[in-house]
Amino acid sequence: MLGAPTFASPLRLSVSERGVPFVQPDASVRLSVSDDDRESASFERAGPRERLFFKSDEVRAGIVTCGGLCPGLNHVVRAIVFALVHSYGCSAIKGYRYGYEGLTASGVAPIELGTEIVRDIHRIGGSYLGASRGAQPLSEMVDSLVRDGISMLFTIGGDGTLRGAHAIATEIAARSLPIAIVGVPKTIDNDVAFVDRTFGFETAVEQARTVLQAAHAEARSARNGVCIVQLMGRDAGFITASATLASGEVNVCLVPEVPFTPTALAKYLEQRLAARGHAVIVVAEGCAAQLGDTSGDSRGAKRDVAAALAARIAAHFRTIDRPIAIKVIDPSYTLRSVPATADDAIYCDQLGRYAVHAAMSGRTDLVVGRVHRELVHVPLEKVAGAARRIEPNGELWRLVLEATGQPRLV
Amino acid sequence: MLGAPTFASPLRLSVSERGVPFVQPDASVRLSVSDDDRESASFERAGPRERLFFKSDEVRAGIVTCGGLCPGLNHVVRAIVFALVHSYGCSAIKGYRYGYEGLTASGVAPIELGTEIVRDIHRIGGSYLGASRGAQPLSEMVDSLVRDGISMLFTIGGDGTLRGAHAIATEIAARSLPIAIVGVPKTIDNDVAFVDRTFGFETAVEQARTVLQAAHAEARSARNGVCIVQLMGRDAGFITASATLASGEVNVCLVPEVPFTPTALAKYLEQRLAARGHAVIVVAEGCAAQLGDTSGDSRGAKRDVAAALAARIAAHFRTIDRPIAIKVIDPSYTLRSVPATADDAIYCDQLGRYAVHAAMSGRTDLVVGRVHRELVHVPLEKVAGAARRIEPNGELWRLVLEATGQPRLV
Amino acid sequence: MLGAPTFASPLRLSVSERGVPFVQPDASVRLSVSDDDRESASFERAGPRERLFFKSDEVRAGIVTCGGLCPGLNHVVRAIVFALVHSYGCSAIKGYRYGYEGLTASGVAPIELGTEIVRDIHRIGGSYLGASRGAQPLSEMVDSLVRDGISMLFTIGGDGTLRGAHAIATEIAARSLPIAIVGVPKTIDNDVAFVDRTFGFETAVEQARTVLQAAHAEARSARNGVCIVQLMGRDAGFITASATLASGEVNVCLVPEVPFTPTALAKYLEQRLAARGHAVIVVAEGCAAQLGDTSGDSRGAKRDVAAALAARIAAHFRTIDRPIAIKVIDPSYTLRSVPATADDAIYCDQLGRYAVHAAMSGRTDLVVGRVHRELVHVPLEKVAGAARRIEPNGELWRLVLEATGQPRLV
Amino acid sequence: MLGAPTFASPLRLSVSERGVPFVQPDASVRLSVSDDDRESASFERAGPRERLFFKSDEVRAGIVTCGGLCPGLNHVVRAIVFALVHSYGCSAIKGYRYGYEGLTASGVAPIELGTEIVRDIHRIGGSYLGASRGAQPLSEMVDSLVRDGISMLFTIGGDGTLRGAHAIATEIAARSLPIAIVGVPKTIDNDVAFVDRTFGFETAVEQARTVLQAAHAEARSARNGVCIVQLMGRDAGFITASATLASGEVNVCLVPEVPFTPTALAKYLEQRLAARGHAVIVVAEGCAAQLGDTSGDSRGAKRDVAAALAARIAAHFRTIDRPIAIKVIDPSYTLRSVPATADDAIYCDQLGRYAVHAAMSGRTDLVVGRVHRELVHVPLEKVAGAARRIEPNGELWRLVLEATGQPRLV
Repeated sequence: MLGAPTFASPLRLSVSERGVPFVQPDASVRLSVSDDDRESASFERAGPRERLFFKSDEVRAGIVTCGGLCPGLNHVVRAIVFALVHSYGCSAIKGYRYGYEGLTASGVAPIELGTEIVRDIHRIGGSYLGASRGAQPLSEMVDSLVRDGISMLFTIGGDGTLRGAHAIATEIAARSLPIAIVGVPKTIDNDVAFVDRTFGFETAVEQARTVLQAAHAEARSARNGVCIVQLMGRDAGFITASATLASGEVNVCLVPEVPFTPTALAKYLEQRLAARGHAVIVVAEGCAAQLGDTSGDSRGAKRDVAAALAARIAAHFRTIDRPIAIKVIDPSYTLRSVPATADDAIYCDQLGRYAVHAAMSGRTDLVVGRVHRELVHVPLEKVAGAARRIEPNGELWRLVLEATGQPRLV
Repeated sequence: MLGAPTFASPLRLSVSERGVPFVQPDASVRLSVSDDDRESASFERAGPRERLFFKSDEVRAGIVTCGGLCPGLNHVVRAIVFALVHSYGCSAIKGYRYGYEGLTASGVAPIELGTEIVRDIHRIGGSYLGASRGAQPLSEMVDSLVRDGISMLFTIGGDGTLRGAHAIATEIAARSLPIAIVGVPKTIDNDVAFVDRTFGFETAVEQARTVLQAAHAEARSARNGVCIVQLMGRDAGFITASATLASGEVNVCLVPEVPFTPTALAKYLEQRLAARGHAVIVVAEGCAAQLGDTSGDSRGAKRDVAAALAARIAAHFRTIDRPIAIKVIDPSYTLRSVPATADDAIYCDQLGRYAVHAAMSGRTDLVVGRVHRELVHVPLEKVAGAARRIEPNGELWRLVLEATGQPRLV
Repeated sequence: MLGAPTFASPLRLSVSERGVPFVQPDASVRLSVSDDDRESASFERAGPRERLFFKSDEVRAGIVTCGGLCPGLNHVVRAIVFALVHSYGCSAIKGYRYGYEGLTASGVAPIELGTEIVRDIHRIGGSYLGASRGAQPLSEMVDSLVRDGISMLFTIGGDGTLRGAHAIATEIAARSLPIAIVGVPKTIDNDVAFVDRTFGFETAVEQARTVLQAAHAEARSARNGVCIVQLMGRDAGFITASATLASGEVNVCLVPEVPFTPTALAKYLEQRLAARGHAVIVVAEGCAAQLGDTSGDSRGAKRDVAAALAARIAAHFRTIDRPIAIKVIDPSYTLRSVPATADDAIYCDQLGRYAVHAAMSGRTDLVVGRVHRELVHVPLEKVAGAARRIEPNGELWRLVLEATGQPRLV
Repeated sequence: MLGAPTFASPLRLSVSERGVPFVQPDASVRLSVSDDDRESASFERAGPRERLFFKSDEVRAGIVTCGGLCPGLNHVVRAIVFALVHSYGCSAIKGYRYGYEGLTASGVAPIELGTEIVRDIHRIGGSYLGASRGAQPLSEMVDSLVRDGISMLFTIGGDGTLRGAHAIATEIAARSLPIAIVGVPKTIDNDVAFVDRTFGFETAVEQARTVLQAAHAEARSARNGVCIVQLMGRDAGFITASATLASGEVNVCLVPEVPFTPTALAKYLEQRLAARGHAVIVVAEGCAAQLGDTSGDSRGAKRDVAAALAARIAAHFRTIDRPIAIKVIDPSYTLRSVPATADDAIYCDQLGRYAVHAAMSGRTDLVVGRVHRELVHVPLEKVAGAARRIEPNGELWRLVLEATGQPRLV
């Protein structure tokens, strides 16, 4: 908290004659829903507060999007702008260009945002503000905020971005500035700790399912047809596993969290092709280690995991002199550069609005995220650096095994 | 429970060398996630059990779909068949035709189901088995199950269907028959008590959003353009409210749970058109009461609520001599007769599989449903007859008000 | 022609060292492709000319969209702006608001158009400029063009709009003004004479097919299920017939051009339901006459043709005491308020550019349209007032009969 | 022609009391629509004939699909089956598996086709029958047809397939067998000579446009963002050029038919990025030669053309020390493994039906294809081996240049 919230919220939502159902100060959401785990951690519930730290119509806000693209980015930006303008009467909003770079001297100048400008941006993929990766000089960024008179900065980005946001918040605290830093976690891989689901993930799975349907068509249309699809997921296989379940037509699912060997896979394919005549394989881009590729974790290397896998499989079947028709599909950026599905759109809208509510109340150094379909505040310190992974003994992976029928591939 | 589960599960999912992570006998999920509500009710966690009541490969299963169509129906049927065949080695599966009618003497004969037959049905909307509304003679239905040697019946349907399933289970208990009755709640309106979300709901919202985008195009393209969209929702406005949030372009949202008067609405439209030149209104079909239509709750009457509203608004603007261009869109069945989105597909797959797991373990007289993204068993007695509604003082409606900026319309 | 084209075109398309392949002055396209019809009419080929009437960078252009919405409207507007700016260096472009009304004193003021403003409008349905129906005072409109210094007006609209454009061109000729009037025919019904296909038609058929798939799901999922879909087409059944062919799942197709009686239809349905258990019927909104509704050609009356048909069919089956499940779907505006398909987008882009090429060369009082996939100029006088209809003895209707297997229904 | 058509057609399409409008024996369609080219070639018009060579209900038909997948393949197969069964009363239809391989001893046995089996296959991409590439022993294939008592074989495939079909027809003629061979040209690249458009092409363009929209999002969201999309088109750039026009957001379009050098391209990108900050490039897979890759025309080599281009561009910008963000997207099979668009579906339906009409009348050794939206018969001898290419001085390429504004890149 930047300080005591003393101003009355201008929010006038006529739900009833009694007015708005503001969130109670001490409302919280528990992380665990198991009965046998009653002492689990809990987070503060997000939403509009009755008392604000900022005089809302004097607020000057900034928005920045960082890292790779993710479906719904523009939707979050639009929601922040709409909430600032319509709910709080704030009209001074700067959109920083191309990530944290836009907060530095060498960056492109920010643009003034308003409801007319952002009105239709949710219909189009990508980032309206532009994005970039990488850290920037901390004090230079805080100087920019001070120069622009910013009272709250919304940062939408992944792990690195949130670490950066925490550093900015820390520097702001050190300088005793009244600037709120509120993050919205963005990772298409859905691997943010403490958060059930990140925005854009579901859209990516929807896109991935379409690709898997194409892969199924390719595999089924050839005699001994094998089609390998490579999906995003450098460290976590959530997209790959979820797309497998959504498709219902995948025969082998390979993720970074679960060991497999190409040899065991090829052996299993022998059986599968003999019995069924075709196979669809989906592999997360982060499975280089399982392929024995310890050379490097550079992105380039990992991007070729499906092709490497195809080469191994093809070699195996040449060895046993059985012809197969093997194909590779790498949809790459097409999963992430699309507008959000309806469900993601709802989520993005809420994330953007609740980020504004959090900042207005003086909360800072936190993100808004979803736990059990409820939005909560998670301190940036906790969320940055932590990560979720598929639990090989957990329910998601068991569902994948039920759906594919694949054996242990080691 | 039909009796003690004594058989070892044949499920061989090689998650690890230790084998399958079966659900522990006493695992449960709490209904409330608030910290201040620690004594809330909880439900048994769903999933595969280590011990089964039925000798799985001797099982004879039946599946029936009832009531109106819902996206994902075929997906649930496919998942049940796949789980029965691939996970449990069961090969005797009857698909009863056209709802409970198929369990009576006057019904169409059931079809034998197998994985080849259902392989592609999830790609196509509707119900592969056919469906119908209405109750059928109880003892005749149980007689059919006995005649066909059925050991487990899966009923997929809405409130009436689940009440029927409970009656069948009660009759079976009275006759001391070893037949499990497991339901999958199906209501596109998402108004099942104790269950976060019903399958198909999200798909319906996705479709509805597309319609709202068309409505927005119509409204914005005319001078003083007003477009009214009527959506499903006889008693609950969940589709209408969620589509409003997903669209981000709705100006007035009207649901059965929140009072409004056509006069107050027309007055507000005056302001809105003067300020912005167009308006998109979405109204749930169940809003006849607010329009003063107390004549009847017959379906036909309710279906015309948007047209009735348009007539009222047009009359108001004629009175004040201001020309407007008003249009009505009623997408009706197009929301529900489509294949499921990826996220719904994942849910349908899990529902179908967990329904099979429940029945195999000897559980009966219950449904499988989702609470906080976890699947649980809810007794049929509890779920049938109860219903969820939008809480006018709750979060969902507040989000709608934030998104539309609409005032109280009374 | 407004006069002799004396300026050299600035078009610099480096197809080869020789430069742009301008269209030859006397190039033409024949209407008939039959060998036995060698003396058929032909139209001037459209495209960029080497010599222009206007000094292109001094041109002041206006654009107006009229009548009902049609997929691709924004695409045509965008293409006109891009061609004016990028191909001809013209920067003074006015977008008149809400149809011909925007050319009158009581209209909303026009907006200045440029490439930044229209850059993304093709992604969104509707008309960015707004549209309206109805005629406006001729001299007032020409006065507005003179006042704004307009040298070329692009009018995108249907039959009434093109008649209006011809009247404007005639008045301009009477006043000896150097203003070119170039139309782009817009009718979602595809019933423009001399023109193979109008833009937006294909998109509407794509949308209609989706609706027919939903109808098929509804019909097939009920015992004796009948689903009636009403599609656009007041006088011409092209959308209805084409959607029937695209769907492959329609059992009866009803269009204004081909007689049928509800009684004959009901009799045929008896057979169909006995043999196949379900039926999908699609009817063009203009079939009121066949239903014996001679009361009026008011739009309202016609819009209910599917409901009227359903009532007749239901009455017939009640008479013979056979239960059927009958449903009606009227997708109405959802067919027309969407962005264009890829193929329509290509066509819109070309129409917009060729309209600009035509005007620049001094051509006036004409439309650009497609004949055999070639773009031509058709004099406004010829195209306005004429109309295409489905020929009951022609190929399109024969294909419909082959696809549906429906008999003569009289 | 196999011989004189002596049987009366059973086609009973009650267009009018006079019956079916059969195609007149001498109807033809001219290739050229230019007025100044009145002596151009013409082809026989396709469609149902009044007199048949075969006694239709005794016909035994075979269908085979060959080569790579193409949207609409299943639609054509379905239409052939529906026409055979419903229009001609034929019930003996064999679907040969996996291309010409299915006509050999080592092939998988054919499956019996009927309307129930193929009813829903048009909803799903791929080839229901399976396909394969490559030639098979001629006499072995004809022996299979004789063994199976086939009276007409429908071959759906590309250039190699049609050459094979001509060889089969020639062998059949040599053996004086009464077997009709009718082809349906299938090439997603749309490069069949004499044929305006091949089925599936438009669907591929629709898919490609979606990918280009993603590419635009990627390019626009990064500072100096460049996104290169590689599309199908080994020898002809029709997909690439058409997707460019459909997108309206491509800045550079590269096809095999038009020369360019990577150096000239990089120089142009310098200007483009300085002026506009981003660029979308689309390149056909067949552009290896322009990249100086003369090593081979093997498929593998060509598939990497976008990556090779990206490497060249990146190297150039490193040399001049200007940072750019360059990405590559290769959607590969996702363009071709999807169901057909509505317009393609209509075309596929007509192609399948007219192929049956042609065979029934005793015509053989030909394909059905579209010229100016009219279906015609083209002798296999003419169509096989010939090919269409983009004409660099023609209208299509000029439209691309107008749309992209790209200069000559040599």
